[in-house]
Amino acid sequence: MNDRALRSVIIGLGGPVNGIPRESGFEITVASEIMAILCLSRDLNDLRERIGRVIVGERADGSFVTAGELGVAGALTVLLKDAIKPNLVQTLEGTPAFVHGGPFANIAHGCNSLMATRLALKLGEIVVTEAGFATELGAEKFFDIKCRVGGLTPSAAVIVATVRALKMHGGVKKEDLQAESVAAVRAGLSNLEKHVENIRQFGVPAVVALNHFTKDTEAEVDAVLAACEALGVPARISRVWQRGGAGGTELAQTVLDAMRNGARSTFAPLYPERLPLAKKIETIATTLYGADGIVLAPVASSKLEKYEALGYGSLPVCMAKTQNSLSDDGKKLGRPHDFTVTIRDAKLCAGAGFVVAYAGDVLTMPGLPKKPAAESIDLDDSGNVVGLF
Amino acid sequence: MNDRALRSVIIGLGGPVNGIPRESGFEITVASEIMAILCLSRDLNDLRERIGRVIVGERADGSFVTAGELGVAGALTVLLKDAIKPNLVQTLEGTPAFVHGGPFANIAHGCNSLMATRLALKLGEIVVTEAGFATELGAEKFFDIKCRVGGLTPSAAVIVATVRALKMHGGVKKEDLQAESVAAVRAGLSNLEKHVENIRQFGVPAVVALNHFTKDTEAEVDAVLAACEALGVPARISRVWQRGGAGGTELAQTVLDAMRNGARSTFAPLYPERLPLAKKIETIATTLYGADGIVLAPVASSKLEKYEALGYGSLPVCMAKTQNSLSDDGKKLGRPHDFTVTIRDAKLCAGAGFVVAYAGDVLTMPGLPKKPAAESIDLDDSGNVVGLF
Amino acid sequence: MNDRALRSVIIGLGGPVNGIPRESGFEITVASEIMAILCLSRDLNDLRERIGRVIVGERADGSFVTAGELGVAGALTVLLKDAIKPNLVQTLEGTPAFVHGGPFANIAHGCNSLMATRLALKLGEIVVTEAGFATELGAEKFFDIKCRVGGLTPSAAVIVATVRALKMHGGVKKEDLQAESVAAVRAGLSNLEKHVENIRQFGVPAVVALNHFTKDTEAEVDAVLAACEALGVPARISRVWQRGGAGGTELAQTVLDAMRNGARSTFAPLYPERLPLAKKIETIATTLYGADGIVLAPVASSKLEKYEALGYGSLPVCMAKTQNSLSDDGKKLGRPHDFTVTIRDAKLCAGAGFVVAYAGDVLTMPGLPKKPAAESIDLDDSGNVVGLF
Amino acid sequence: MNDRALRSVIIGLGGPVNGIPRESGFEITVASEIMAILCLSRDLNDLRERIGRVIVGERADGSFVTAGELGVAGALTVLLKDAIKPNLVQTLEGTPAFVHGGPFANIAHGCNSLMATRLALKLGEIVVTEAGFATELGAEKFFDIKCRVGGLTPSAAVIVATVRALKMHGGVKKEDLQAESVAAVRAGLSNLEKHVENIRQFGVPAVVALNHFTKDTEAEVDAVLAACEALGVPARISRVWQRGGAGGTELAQTVLDAMRNGARSTFAPLYPERLPLAKKIETIATTLYGADGIVLAPVASSKLEKYEALGYGSLPVCMAKTQNSLSDDGKKLGRPHDFTVTIRDAKLCAGAGFVVAYAGDVLTMPGLPKKPAAESIDLDDSGNVVGLF
Repeated sequence: MNDRALRSVIIGLGGPVNGIPRESGFEITVASEIMAILCLSRDLNDLRERIGRVIVGERADGSFVTAGELGVAGALTVLLKDAIKPNLVQTLEGTPAFVHGGPFANIAHGCNSLMATRLALKLGEIVVTEAGFATELGAEKFFDIKCRVGGLTPSAAVIVATVRALKMHGGVKKEDLQAESVAAVRAGLSNLEKHVENIRQFGVPAVVALNHFTKDTEAEVDAVLAACEALGVPARISRVWQRGGAGGTELAQTVLDAMRNGARSTFAPLYPERLPLAKKIETIATTLYGADGIVLAPVASSKLEKYEALGYGSLPVCMAKTQNSLSDDGKKLGRPHDFTVTIRDAKLCAGAGFVVAYAGDVLTMPGLPKKPAAESIDLDDSGNVVGLF
Repeated sequence: MNDRALRSVIIGLGGPVNGIPRESGFEITVASEIMAILCLSRDLNDLRERIGRVIVGERADGSFVTAGELGVAGALTVLLKDAIKPNLVQTLEGTPAFVHGGPFANIAHGCNSLMATRLALKLGEIVVTEAGFATELGAEKFFDIKCRVGGLTPSAAVIVATVRALKMHGGVKKEDLQAESVAAVRAGLSNLEKHVENIRQFGVPAVVALNHFTKDTEAEVDAVLAACEALGVPARISRVWQRGGAGGTELAQTVLDAMRNGARSTFAPLYPERLPLAKKIETIATTLYGADGIVLAPVASSKLEKYEALGYGSLPVCMAKTQNSLSDDGKKLGRPHDFTVTIRDAKLCAGAGFVVAYAGDVLTMPGLPKKPAAESIDLDDSGNVVGLF
Repeated sequence: MNDRALRSVIIGLGGPVNGIPRESGFEITVASEIMAILCLSRDLNDLRERIGRVIVGERADGSFVTAGELGVAGALTVLLKDAIKPNLVQTLEGTPAFVHGGPFANIAHGCNSLMATRLALKLGEIVVTEAGFATELGAEKFFDIKCRVGGLTPSAAVIVATVRALKMHGGVKKEDLQAESVAAVRAGLSNLEKHVENIRQFGVPAVVALNHFTKDTEAEVDAVLAACEALGVPARISRVWQRGGAGGTELAQTVLDAMRNGARSTFAPLYPERLPLAKKIETIATTLYGADGIVLAPVASSKLEKYEALGYGSLPVCMAKTQNSLSDDGKKLGRPHDFTVTIRDAKLCAGAGFVVAYAGDVLTMPGLPKKPAAESIDLDDSGNVVGLF
Repeated sequence: MNDRALRSVIIGLGGPVNGIPRESGFEITVASEIMAILCLSRDLNDLRERIGRVIVGERADGSFVTAGELGVAGALTVLLKDAIKPNLVQTLEGTPAFVHGGPFANIAHGCNSLMATRLALKLGEIVVTEAGFATELGAEKFFDIKCRVGGLTPSAAVIVATVRALKMHGGVKKEDLQAESVAAVRAGLSNLEKHVENIRQFGVPAVVALNHFTKDTEAEVDAVLAACEALGVPARISRVWQRGGAGGTELAQTVLDAMRNGARSTFAPLYPERLPLAKKIETIATTLYGADGIVLAPVASSKLEKYEALGYGSLPVCMAKTQNSLSDDGKKLGRPHDFTVTIRDAKLCAGAGFVVAYAGDVLTMPGLPKKPAAESIDLDDSGNVVGLF
């Protein structure tokens, strides 16, 4: 069970027979290093090696103890030997799809498994993959972490936009989204503009998919399409939710066109491996978030220095940041300017192969529901599960 | 993962957003109340009601808070809705068998699920069920808890004995068991004698199955059979491990005979519901363990008084005691005399429907392996799991 | 500040710079080993050596770490270098008295400092010393611990009795003590009888001082005096509270007589050093408490075995037991019979030079006031402290 | 005992009888709010009121619980009723001095008690008081906290400088300080220059006291005096350590002259009460430290907002910052430029009447001695304490 009371715990109490007292904590599966390892491994051997590199403690002299040194990498791998196999499912229309791996894109690297993507590349002509939470989170990590590790070269990127989200970035409250407001759409377009710029910084052609909602008005939709035209980015309306595959044909064709022109795709990660860790974070923050710079809290700064000193300086960084804003402050909407990103802590995931940087107050104020879901979930008289959604 | 460092923990640390700090702990699945509930429920509705009665906390006035009061009984039941279905497997010879539920018999009630047993009773003419750890633990709990709850009436009981175990009760060390020692067998027979007496106290006919090992000598086997004859209990050699079903035909026939004569079965639980909790514990200890009496530690005594006062006095007790001795001291072999059983703590499992009484130092000194199993478990080059056993 | 929230704590949290996480606790000063050491030391050198022997931890191999091994015995002694000097005060009538040291007699050894007693013996002809909480606690520890350590030979013992306490032991509730009840006094006299027997077991002449209260009736007082006469123990009424020294002259003369006849004093401790620790506890419980025997909880038993194995078996024991009963159950009044004393835990005080045995639930249910004293304490307008009592 | 293992603790463990489990910690006396209250109170009544305002907890709705609401302000005041009386001592030459109160100037407000200062002002013509750790810490807090609270108007300020410290600020290592280096002195004078500027920002005349050391060379001393002349600040050599009062006569006369010209003293605190808390911190950091600005960690920001919302916005701030640099980074010597001050946390001391702002990593990396002082402290054979220094 996922229980916030397990976030920060003390274990090993009750005397020597119960182990050594120590401060510890549980993480949700989607944020765990094991999940990241599962999704970044090339095969079972790679999985085993990565698990062996996981850091489980620190010696008195500051050096790290790994799972491999404890001699348990094999046993841990056994637990994952079936989980690593990509999971093939199909859509309602019978199209094959892999659903495999689940790191969140705000607090983890946000991509499905490398094995599933590579298998799909062998089986199909075109592979579409999802990277959650927009370009500065999901796309950045897909490009800088997964593509780098897996040697992938994306041909095109689809940015999914909605009139509703743009209106929120333009200042409209959630409860007022039903009313037409072309002005709000226009105000919010600065956010979309930044995401288009972000994709271009990776040298990848971008296409905007406008995910249509029934209450979107023609004037609002036109405002988005016109803005995209002004930005020189192709944009198409998607009605997949309504018409199935047929609702996305035009979008798919446009993406195909972008890919074929994608001889022009000049994909490269945002930063080179050799850049110091703090500089990598700064590069992401200034280039993709639009920040003036970063401030490292003392504890973050000393950890990054230690990681560099122990030879982990060439790893990519995995930003943990709110998905509600391009900045590290979830209340700054649209395209924020004049802000600094605070890195309050860092963590080395030597098995996954990246250094997590915690920006702002991400994770410290998670929005748990006021009414626990468990109060609604039940079985009905026929034994069916009810109340899940 | 089963980790002794999780036995005694403090959770909810790190500020109000992480909950309320409190002392807690993890139990192994086989000792959990949820496992006991799963195994004692008649159906899904009963399961849901029992889960709703699980005590999760105490109010400032000393009254209990249940899972049902938290409104989560339904959600918890959903998690178990498939687990409750009895699991049908088959032996190497194709005989059907249910393997369903796993409470240990030393620290839990030690029986498979009631649903599996009842289903088997509807499907077969004879149902054999296992209750681990001898008559004073597994059998006592089968009779006093499972049969009472499920309205079961056993027709006969099979006591499984081995020459090796009898020699150990007769004082032979594990490393010396290979050598013949009829004297040691005879010395250890006092233990078997007590188990035969124990079964008889429940009014059930007993049969002894002597589970044969290759190193058992004829003289040793004869000593056991002769002693059983003297006790008036039928005894047969079982060679099922060697010959499959054919190796147990004679035993099976003897059990059938015992059952048919079992018009004489006058099964009754050892104690009535109305007996106070402390008296129930004392009855088990003096009648089945051979103790002079019990000593309740102050904390155990005050808990039992509280359970009585709050209306739980009519529940059966579930003893947690070492399986290595008829007493609460694992070093007392054979048939111990002149000892007192110390009850150091108690716990109300209102959902399972019993009160656990912790005898001696059971659980506080569990024998974890000096070499962790995880060090041996691994995958070989073909991806097969090795090192499990 | 004395705060029960400090009884059981975890310290050293927050990372390596804050030390090693560990379970610990605070004790009230009167129960601390330092207080015991202060009161049992012969001089400053002895104090320093005893502090050096205090056990502060355990190595992985089970051996002990002492304060001396940490190199801090000197620093700790510096803190006590003035405290060790006996404190001379005077009574309202100008009689000199030492008030020095404060271990409680229920949870510690209950005597003032050995240095004060020895100094008094050099300065006066007769030294009267107090040992709190009756003969089975204060007197036992005075005889078996302090006299043994200090080479003291008491000439006589005064047992202080009150009509009120005897009536309570005879079954009268505290709120009903005002009413005369000779029957209750007689019923309670079995308690006094046991205390007289206890003193005699140490070979010391006893005198009973009946501490008179204004509401005591002549019939009640006569009942006590008659019972003492029957027991062959001299008894005198003390009215010191009312008349000062003059109110105790008769008692004092009787004690003097007892001492002079005390050529017959054949004082000896109750048990020899060589007796095993568990046997010492059993001797005290059966001889002085009137118990049938003792039951050692597993943790107590294994600790005592360890202390013996490490060479501490010759130390005297210091019982921690409720002062409300001769037994370990505070509700058993008068002279209890047919009871067993449960030793739930033990602690080695190698510096003080004894092994504490915790009987029953002493310490786990201490009676803190429902209304904290701090709510009443204040300064008045003139800056005087009010509300202390 | 001052033990870093007590910094972060969990208390109230072991069941309801031991209170409610909670995270807590001990602070050294010199950093405690009680010490600040003692030093900022006008009299016993003020002390009692301030203690009553100390915040001891938070309700579920976020509002504060005070010591006064617990009804214990009186009892706490009783403990301090004698401590509040200023402590009069004398120098070796017989000059009277008050030594009273001990808050550190890096982690607390750094001034002796207001009662002592006010008493001295009534008894003497000139009162000299100390505020530790230079102008941006001790002086700032003396001016902005103590003078504001106590209605004090300082007539002049003495800045104590040493050739050694200036050389360190000029880049010389501690072990190389013996060698003459006029260049290093000149390089370090930027630090002194900033302190002179800082004092002038409060409108108070400054005098520099050059505390002379035997190894200071004439050229080094001249460099300092020349620089002060260039700055227009009177500077005098102090040889009090060598010649007693006579060694400071010239300095004293210069201070007197500054005071008499101090009709020109136009003392005012650095910021008005009405400024928001974050602005107060920013004002101190930019004006006195020379920072470009401040960065508030999310937790600090949300606390300051809460304090404002609950009506504590008009309190002064008490900076906790390293004393080794004008910045919040102890390694930045001289007069640092181009830096930002990170405020990582904040704490409301409602009784003391200020809000503590924690800058950089102050407190998290305190320099405990590698060899504990307790190892050296002891009694010698004559009972004298040795090894304290």
